[in-house]
Amino acid sequence: MLRTEPDAVGISLADRYRQVRALTETLAAPLSAEDQTAQSMPDASPTKWHRAHTSWFFETFVLEPYSAGYRPYDERFAYLFNSYYETVGPFFPRGQRGVVTRPGIEQVASYRSHVDGAVEALLTAGAPDDAEGRVVLGCSHEQQHQELVLMDIKNVLAANPLGPAYLPDTSPAPFSGPDGAPSAGGGWVGHDGGLVEIGHDGYGFAFDNESPRHTLYLQPFGLADQLVTNGQWLEFMADDGYNRPELWLSEGWATVRAEHWDAPLYWQAVDGGWCHYTLSGVRPVDPAEAVCHVSYFEADAFARWAGARLPTEAEWEVVAADRPVAGRFLGLGRLRPGPAGHEPSLFGDVWQWTSSSYAPYPGYRPGPGALGEYNGKFMANQYVLRGGACVTPAGHVRATYRNYFPASARWAFSGLRLARDL
Amino acid sequence: MLRTEPDAVGISLADRYRQVRALTETLAAPLSAEDQTAQSMPDASPTKWHRAHTSWFFETFVLEPYSAGYRPYDERFAYLFNSYYETVGPFFPRGQRGVVTRPGIEQVASYRSHVDGAVEALLTAGAPDDAEGRVVLGCSHEQQHQELVLMDIKNVLAANPLGPAYLPDTSPAPFSGPDGAPSAGGGWVGHDGGLVEIGHDGYGFAFDNESPRHTLYLQPFGLADQLVTNGQWLEFMADDGYNRPELWLSEGWATVRAEHWDAPLYWQAVDGGWCHYTLSGVRPVDPAEAVCHVSYFEADAFARWAGARLPTEAEWEVVAADRPVAGRFLGLGRLRPGPAGHEPSLFGDVWQWTSSSYAPYPGYRPGPGALGEYNGKFMANQYVLRGGACVTPAGHVRATYRNYFPASARWAFSGLRLARDL
Amino acid sequence: MLRTEPDAVGISLADRYRQVRALTETLAAPLSAEDQTAQSMPDASPTKWHRAHTSWFFETFVLEPYSAGYRPYDERFAYLFNSYYETVGPFFPRGQRGVVTRPGIEQVASYRSHVDGAVEALLTAGAPDDAEGRVVLGCSHEQQHQELVLMDIKNVLAANPLGPAYLPDTSPAPFSGPDGAPSAGGGWVGHDGGLVEIGHDGYGFAFDNESPRHTLYLQPFGLADQLVTNGQWLEFMADDGYNRPELWLSEGWATVRAEHWDAPLYWQAVDGGWCHYTLSGVRPVDPAEAVCHVSYFEADAFARWAGARLPTEAEWEVVAADRPVAGRFLGLGRLRPGPAGHEPSLFGDVWQWTSSSYAPYPGYRPGPGALGEYNGKFMANQYVLRGGACVTPAGHVRATYRNYFPASARWAFSGLRLARDL
Amino acid sequence: MLRTEPDAVGISLADRYRQVRALTETLAAPLSAEDQTAQSMPDASPTKWHRAHTSWFFETFVLEPYSAGYRPYDERFAYLFNSYYETVGPFFPRGQRGVVTRPGIEQVASYRSHVDGAVEALLTAGAPDDAEGRVVLGCSHEQQHQELVLMDIKNVLAANPLGPAYLPDTSPAPFSGPDGAPSAGGGWVGHDGGLVEIGHDGYGFAFDNESPRHTLYLQPFGLADQLVTNGQWLEFMADDGYNRPELWLSEGWATVRAEHWDAPLYWQAVDGGWCHYTLSGVRPVDPAEAVCHVSYFEADAFARWAGARLPTEAEWEVVAADRPVAGRFLGLGRLRPGPAGHEPSLFGDVWQWTSSSYAPYPGYRPGPGALGEYNGKFMANQYVLRGGACVTPAGHVRATYRNYFPASARWAFSGLRLARDL
Repeated sequence: MLRTEPDAVGISLADRYRQVRALTETLAAPLSAEDQTAQSMPDASPTKWHRAHTSWFFETFVLEPYSAGYRPYDERFAYLFNSYYETVGPFFPRGQRGVVTRPGIEQVASYRSHVDGAVEALLTAGAPDDAEGRVVLGCSHEQQHQELVLMDIKNVLAANPLGPAYLPDTSPAPFSGPDGAPSAGGGWVGHDGGLVEIGHDGYGFAFDNESPRHTLYLQPFGLADQLVTNGQWLEFMADDGYNRPELWLSEGWATVRAEHWDAPLYWQAVDGGWCHYTLSGVRPVDPAEAVCHVSYFEADAFARWAGARLPTEAEWEVVAADRPVAGRFLGLGRLRPGPAGHEPSLFGDVWQWTSSSYAPYPGYRPGPGALGEYNGKFMANQYVLRGGACVTPAGHVRATYRNYFPASARWAFSGLRLARDL
Repeated sequence: MLRTEPDAVGISLADRYRQVRALTETLAAPLSAEDQTAQSMPDASPTKWHRAHTSWFFETFVLEPYSAGYRPYDERFAYLFNSYYETVGPFFPRGQRGVVTRPGIEQVASYRSHVDGAVEALLTAGAPDDAEGRVVLGCSHEQQHQELVLMDIKNVLAANPLGPAYLPDTSPAPFSGPDGAPSAGGGWVGHDGGLVEIGHDGYGFAFDNESPRHTLYLQPFGLADQLVTNGQWLEFMADDGYNRPELWLSEGWATVRAEHWDAPLYWQAVDGGWCHYTLSGVRPVDPAEAVCHVSYFEADAFARWAGARLPTEAEWEVVAADRPVAGRFLGLGRLRPGPAGHEPSLFGDVWQWTSSSYAPYPGYRPGPGALGEYNGKFMANQYVLRGGACVTPAGHVRATYRNYFPASARWAFSGLRLARDL
Repeated sequence: MLRTEPDAVGISLADRYRQVRALTETLAAPLSAEDQTAQSMPDASPTKWHRAHTSWFFETFVLEPYSAGYRPYDERFAYLFNSYYETVGPFFPRGQRGVVTRPGIEQVASYRSHVDGAVEALLTAGAPDDAEGRVVLGCSHEQQHQELVLMDIKNVLAANPLGPAYLPDTSPAPFSGPDGAPSAGGGWVGHDGGLVEIGHDGYGFAFDNESPRHTLYLQPFGLADQLVTNGQWLEFMADDGYNRPELWLSEGWATVRAEHWDAPLYWQAVDGGWCHYTLSGVRPVDPAEAVCHVSYFEADAFARWAGARLPTEAEWEVVAADRPVAGRFLGLGRLRPGPAGHEPSLFGDVWQWTSSSYAPYPGYRPGPGALGEYNGKFMANQYVLRGGACVTPAGHVRATYRNYFPASARWAFSGLRLARDL
Repeated sequence: MLRTEPDAVGISLADRYRQVRALTETLAAPLSAEDQTAQSMPDASPTKWHRAHTSWFFETFVLEPYSAGYRPYDERFAYLFNSYYETVGPFFPRGQRGVVTRPGIEQVASYRSHVDGAVEALLTAGAPDDAEGRVVLGCSHEQQHQELVLMDIKNVLAANPLGPAYLPDTSPAPFSGPDGAPSAGGGWVGHDGGLVEIGHDGYGFAFDNESPRHTLYLQPFGLADQLVTNGQWLEFMADDGYNRPELWLSEGWATVRAEHWDAPLYWQAVDGGWCHYTLSGVRPVDPAEAVCHVSYFEADAFARWAGARLPTEAEWEVVAADRPVAGRFLGLGRLRPGPAGHEPSLFGDVWQWTSSSYAPYPGYRPGPGALGEYNGKFMANQYVLRGGACVTPAGHVRATYRNYFPASARWAFSGLRLARDL
């Protein structure tokens, strides 16, 4: 399931390791020790924890089995920084991570250096294929946590009434089409359906949940060529979308009422208009941008309101398979989705909810041992998202990539693209 | 979505109506006023409420639109006995149904008679097709509630430390194969996969969620010819199945720990062995019987332990489509599943968990108006079960029939049948 | 702690036993089997449970120790109907009492008869003093449950949107002073303070928590000669009393917000005015009546708003000690407090919150054995109420009688009388 | 109620202000930015928050009313650092304080300097008496928060599986009597009871809840001359104290079961013995030390087990009034209670639970305005503790001082001293 083909960009694994590890530190750099320690909810972890956990991952799955004589930085970290691998051993309760003030950020940096030295030595000395495969996995794992760092710290900073920015926005002011006007867009990409194949074909790295590649049969469908925008979402809100039970799944409606949802997460009504907290602070909602931080329940209700539906993950993938994996991915100058453009891509800006429950592909087998817990055990009561977002490291996603969250989750950079039957 | 073809058994709609309505009263008859009033958990409703709600259904969807001059029995019942139809109007909170002591069971009987008179008059006078279609729907709806009456009262009576029986068991003592020995069973029904069709074909009544019939592609698979038995479940327990996280979905494992599950619902350890509460009181667990009252999480863990998996609903349906809809359905002499037999059927005994998340079929459209809330709005975070159980009224299910419950639910008569890749 | 002096009214103990037991059945008589089974919240128990529990009390504390050869009606009832006596044995969880549909009301009646026969036989045969003392205690205990029957069924029936009455009101229409006008009232009874004694003097029955009689020192104070009325409460509401945090204890304010309190329990806004559910159904709030179903937090806030305070229990008792124990106690024709009258009594109408935390008197010792659990173990986080209410059986209370509830409880017939420093 | 008599130690108010403010910073100094940010439970606040809130207190109650032209450091801090003063304005939810990562500890230091400059300027310029009175109050307020800093950070650090120390223990090794053996102790201080006075006499500063001084009447009683020790607590545990419901208040017993208490907070079973987390890390439990971190419920159960009771606050105060306010108060070399000694004091080591519910003294009136919220609004469902602890700043407590916590709280440095009737 883990494949170690040469990386597409052609750099050595050691260089790739260094680049990935360095990006994590770059993302943490604007954050104070205080920022890196806070946990705003059980689902979101402190930055410091992400930095340590990703190091523990290399320590546990690469260094301990493959680096003879490796000494763990601190034996007690196994308990603190194991996330959820039951078969590795007991782990500290997720919801309590914010209470662990020590090790502090300096010691975590030291832990990272310790691990980096050992991994680099192993790679330099010539690691066995299995070890290299696990380094590749560890790099992809760390990229996932890079996105989590941004998702989670956004949740922390947004809860602060001072609305502090993570980084200033340095993107060009009229961020829209070449002529300064947003694209009309609104078209549909048609597909005839029939027998298709989805899933990873085995060339290059993929997570186990993307395999095996398999055949399935689709009805003809159309997929929107643009993401749903804030402007469209404001229309939904103006049409009383959050107050009409007939638009909602039953559990979604119960959630709307219990949580008092009346707009996407991080939106706030200001002087008769809408602003939202972004990683660059509170800004007016731009109607041209893709809507972000909506739950599956909201995406589903919007689609119903719009007379459309969400795509299945297979529909999304068969269209995406023909497209370049290009789009607005992680760039520190602009940590929010862009506006609809003239050359729409299927990738980037926001993760796109699909109507597909996260389930194993036919013939799926998780790997042996603790790494088999990586993906498979989460295949219940979650929905698949596709495409990557403006906080996803470039090079991390592919057409076959499956992200997943519970239907009520909103702190991911999640939006939607409509589909319809043809 | 509602079809009004002549009923397969060839009786008139009025007779069918009368039969269905009478069965509800037959099921309630062994229950005292006290029994019929209690609510053991928000998911389970009082018998009395089921008797009234099913009448409200006919009143609201048949009599009010189609019976000129119909006067509701009591205008205030609309609020009390609407279950969840948001577009009909507000309704009394589900979790509070047990507090509604009035109307009492006598007045509910009077309510039922009032509605019956009006429906029968409408049918006698010659109702329009739409009205007849809704009577057919109402009868199927009431059959669903007949099963709920038994599920829900079992939950009530099982919570009583006196362990009272609903009805005595009158089934023949050695309830097994003709030679008195349980069947060896354990075989697999193979299927070559390929392009198949599932869903309702439009002949006879079906719920909207069974449509449209559509094509899909399957890999080759095998489906067990027997249900999983209590004996097999005891082996799973003896092999520490409830204590090994590697067998469980992550959310399932969290549920096992939080709820202290160590056996199916209603099982109790007695003198070193296992008994379980049945509708005939507490009895020793019979290893030959199909296991019952297990959640999706447990079914999934068992399948993993057994080196197999749960079938998808499509796999189940393509095999079942060729079989007679025969099996152990509702019979008052034996309200528990039977033992594995020599002529296994795909139907009856226990509902069978599939691995399929409950989702709309391609092209599914809920009907207009309040009846559109019947099924569609529950299509999230639930799993499909197939086949009917020993508490399902005979004639109620079909090969295309889709039941559904959340992954942690155990109070339905739910068991499992294994599948595997070929 | 239990005293067995001849009863003030001079009837035999056997007669008293019969009278008390009969009143319980009289109170249950208007209630259907359904009514008697429902439990609206963990604090409130089904009527049927009260009828059985009081019988269990005699069975456990009188018959088992003192009636040779007594056979319990059903050995399993000890588990079902023990309320909270840890040292007697385990007991069924309080919050689940509504699920116990069997024994039904008929069988409970049979249980009561069985116990009555045995107690009466014991008394006739000449019981030892200790046994008689326990019968006296059991009668007072049952009277407490008689009041609970009414409190608890009111909570059940009030939750029913049909607002059913327990019994019609048969009290004379203009229930006020002889001249048809409510009394002006509003005076204060002064007391000079100094050394006083409170607590039971040992003559006649009293609960253990009323002893020992002891000396304490009071500052001079005044006690209102009237209960606070609905009319005064409406002024408090009109003056935004439920929205001004400065009037409330911190925990009270948190409760107001969490529970959305804006009026006493059972009040509902109807057409711009206020009605309330009474045991005779929904009626307009009568400004002349004593306010009822307010919590300690509300009583305390009202007193602060009124520029007064609640009395301590000692202040109340030293005034009450000189008054006749006369007032509006339980009468089936009128199950709500009366209006302020011309000859105000300190007793009856509503229980009066005092500012005294429920605590042991100096030198208090609970009795040995399980009966020591009767009162003492509840002496934390509760407040004392005095005086009895319109649902308290006549003859049950005394000047020294201490009732107690948590500060947020509202389902008792609780109101208030103001006090102030002099 | 706030009195501004010359300070007993005879230093100027400005010097006192500086000393108090400096001690807060001394206490924070060993804590990293991470440590100072974490919140382990809603009741416990981050160190950083305490440092800022105490500054807000001076800003709001001294500088804004009395320092003409004072400019708040940051207007938005009023919302962030108001603790609970409803009449001052809205405030940030208590349970979310740990999410406020900014301002960071450096900015909080800057905030403190800004306030200090303004307060010192005001005092130097000659502040009006009212302003000086509020500075005195603010200093006592800050001392309360100094103790909270230690209580709260102990809760944070104890939750860390690494068990980090706040400061090393530098107290002499055999910390017991001069002869190296713990004192026998165990005597009782008798009091004849009768008319006594308690409460503050108006000389020197006191909080409003200590007034007015008033007369009350006591029965004769004895007060233990020693605190209850860990050794005695171990006997209680060995005698199954945590498993015998007859020893417990009903609500206490429910708490024991729900929270799985089997020892004081911070105790952990290690290799067959008991250790406990202290601010100097995990150490073996010393039988000679006063027991600490027990709830009111535990203290009450212990007293019952010991055949004694807790003292009332009046009993404690009349004995303490004759004693010097000397004992083991805050000293950074030893942040845990000491052993029973040869010259027992009524003060220091641990706060002592009394049986007195926290209630207003007769004639108590909270002050006008927001400062009236300081104490009075918490007078419900809490119990009074007396005497100060090893984390209470020296000079902070007096014989009349009333501390208070809910009956289930354990994170304060709370222990007990027994009393008995004579």
